[in-house]
Amino acid sequence: MASEATQSNQVRADIIAMGTELTTGASTDTNSAWLSSRFVELGVSTRRHVTIADDLPAIVHEVRESARCAKVVVMTGGLGPTVDDMTRDALADAVGEALVLDESALAEIEAFYASLGREMPETNRRQAMRPESATMLRNDWGTAPGLRIRIGDAEVFSLPGVPREMKAMFAAYVVPAVEAMAGREHVSVRVIRTFGAGESNLAEQISDLMTVGRNPAVGTTASEGVISVRIVARGESDEAADALAQKDIDAVRERLGVLVYGEGDDTLASVVGKRLAELRKTVSTAESCSGGLLGAMLTDVPGSSAYYVGGFIPYSYEQKSESLGIPMELIQTHGAVSEPCAEAMAERCRALTKSDYALSITGIAGPGGGTEDKPVGLVYIALADSAGVKVKECRFSERLNREVIRDRSARTALNMLRRKLAES
Amino acid sequence: MASEATQSNQVRADIIAMGTELTTGASTDTNSAWLSSRFVELGVSTRRHVTIADDLPAIVHEVRESARCAKVVVMTGGLGPTVDDMTRDALADAVGEALVLDESALAEIEAFYASLGREMPETNRRQAMRPESATMLRNDWGTAPGLRIRIGDAEVFSLPGVPREMKAMFAAYVVPAVEAMAGREHVSVRVIRTFGAGESNLAEQISDLMTVGRNPAVGTTASEGVISVRIVARGESDEAADALAQKDIDAVRERLGVLVYGEGDDTLASVVGKRLAELRKTVSTAESCSGGLLGAMLTDVPGSSAYYVGGFIPYSYEQKSESLGIPMELIQTHGAVSEPCAEAMAERCRALTKSDYALSITGIAGPGGGTEDKPVGLVYIALADSAGVKVKECRFSERLNREVIRDRSARTALNMLRRKLAES
Repeated sequence: MASEATQSNQVRADIIAMGTELTTGASTDTNSAWLSSRFVELGVSTRRHVTIADDLPAIVHEVRESARCAKVVVMTGGLGPTVDDMTRDALADAVGEALVLDESALAEIEAFYASLGREMPETNRRQAMRPESATMLRNDWGTAPGLRIRIGDAEVFSLPGVPREMKAMFAAYVVPAVEAMAGREHVSVRVIRTFGAGESNLAEQISDLMTVGRNPAVGTTASEGVISVRIVARGESDEAADALAQKDIDAVRERLGVLVYGEGDDTLASVVGKRLAELRKTVSTAESCSGGLLGAMLTDVPGSSAYYVGGFIPYSYEQKSESLGIPMELIQTHGAVSEPCAEAMAERCRALTKSDYALSITGIAGPGGGTEDKPVGLVYIALADSAGVKVKECRFSERLNREVIRDRSARTALNMLRRKLAES
Repeated sequence: MASEATQSNQVRADIIAMGTELTTGASTDTNSAWLSSRFVELGVSTRRHVTIADDLPAIVHEVRESARCAKVVVMTGGLGPTVDDMTRDALADAVGEALVLDESALAEIEAFYASLGREMPETNRRQAMRPESATMLRNDWGTAPGLRIRIGDAEVFSLPGVPREMKAMFAAYVVPAVEAMAGREHVSVRVIRTFGAGESNLAEQISDLMTVGRNPAVGTTASEGVISVRIVARGESDEAADALAQKDIDAVRERLGVLVYGEGDDTLASVVGKRLAELRKTVSTAESCSGGLLGAMLTDVPGSSAYYVGGFIPYSYEQKSESLGIPMELIQTHGAVSEPCAEAMAERCRALTKSDYALSITGIAGPGGGTEDKPVGLVYIALADSAGVKVKECRFSERLNREVIRDRSARTALNMLRRKLAES
């Protein structure tokens, strides 16, 4: 980033997040990281993120400072209907203008409430106010319209703080404006997604690509068991940057092999779903300790009814026996958290649903319920198909909490199916 | 927060996070929210968070700005051994001093490496450098020592960016220093959780409590359909602050009535679970469009096996008929997304699992599958008990995406059960 000082024509962005819920730690700001990541892809360097409380003079000060130093400023939050939503006032103060009522924005907010069969609360009128020289940005994803205003040499965009709305409005309004600016860099960003190895283990296999100052810049991040490899290539043109990134993509894919499950927005569930649909195969699930999480991940993918037939959550012993038909004797002999039980769950689930594949999960997610023989973190995951059933024993660290153990169990099940489908 | 301007003797904090991995969005800064939350408890208001790239002039500028406005400044990151770790240089520049080698810090870093049976890499010498007037803060949780330095009226603490090390060093060095400062406030923080009303609707009912500058400060935030009311009370003593907060808690609870489901860390699932356990009642689930999400929420609570017997995910028509025994004729006549189907799912689920309550969900989560009659967002949720079955028709806005529609459906089901259990 030392290059920033020397390349003065480069487009730089500032991000300002507003809300006392952020400066008091009641919420964590995830918008700024997401925005920065999108700016990298657009060839724009983010200079700084600032998070401030709902305090008018402080907001005005930071907006002026950002508008002085950056060509693009994105503000998130502070557009709600209540008196502690101060973005509109702050922008008006920053440019020395009065707030005016935008009739068409008001009509849209009223229409939104009408579509819900409700009358617009009087407080929501505030959301139709704007500084005189500002443009209202229509929000098709919620009630709070955004604002766009010129302050000095900077284009300032004010977007809602709700991540879903913010992301949609960034795409609709900020991206086209930034793409039209001169001085952007030619950058290609690619992200490879892997599952099944630890971060330092994986980083060792590509350490020569991760040298500081190298182009492309290659780095790893870990989230929910997924290790991502991020490649940021810069070139004289978009094509040159793309080609440079592709070279590293090929190298990383070759070295990491089957650990790589996809790129970009791919999830284990979306990759598994796509492959099942291609093969015209179906899957079902039987979940004990994960309690429906695996089904929820599979059905998080639009169109999953094409291959997911459904499943069972036999949480109690009785349900394992009654809804899946697993012999009580088997459970009494081996325990519900055992290889034979996981096997039986997958096989019975496959038979009952007549699916091509069935996945089962049974384990001890904790914090209670662990014994010396069967500690918290012990999970059996089975995959049944026409050829039989295969069980994987996982021993997740006891340092992981219930949420993480359940999440990793469901992802490991998806990964087993992914590896199996790769053989087809 | 308007009170900040008038109470000049109040201790205020600024937080500065450093690292190009943050300003490029490769990592999300969670340290600042954690620090802010701790500061609130210590009676200190956080004025702002700033995140900056590894860029020396920018860091120096923000450090000076923070030291001018805040009494406590915590910096995280930028203490590593490489050239892009610039905190030491930035602090030296900010106070106009040279960097000197701290012999005892050097000895400690060398000893740390010796304890690993390795020689200290020459680059790590940088970590023993400090501005002349700074104090080195020993790091017993990693290699990078921290720094403490006075800049103007501000105490500036520089801590490592690794959350685990940062938190330990905050407790060891920052907490005692802050506790010794005059002008800290006595603060009591409480959060009420509600479900079932929109944020502006709810805010209207407590708008008089939400006036800017009032003590306690009352604010609302929305996340995943849950609207939270946060009460931050300040008093002459901890007891006075607690009493003041309690008064607002009582007022908010009375006005919002059944919308309030809990406080602090309570979730809909934990509250429902606690009540089921108290009543020694059980629940089961039958989920179509939510695909297991409701089961996953219920079983996210430790000890849920005491009341959750399990459930079904009859995603396909066949599974609705085969695993739950819903007549194909009913599905063909009314459709799988219909009041009769939701009713039948809940009743059959309750009968099959012999649970006291059964919840069912069937709907169109989208993005595909909607028709004029049955648009995306139409969801039927049923609750069966010994007295019969009750269905709720939800028409979630088409503006919401698949993930949100599924999430709200599952939470609405939990909320139906919560309201029912409140009558018991």
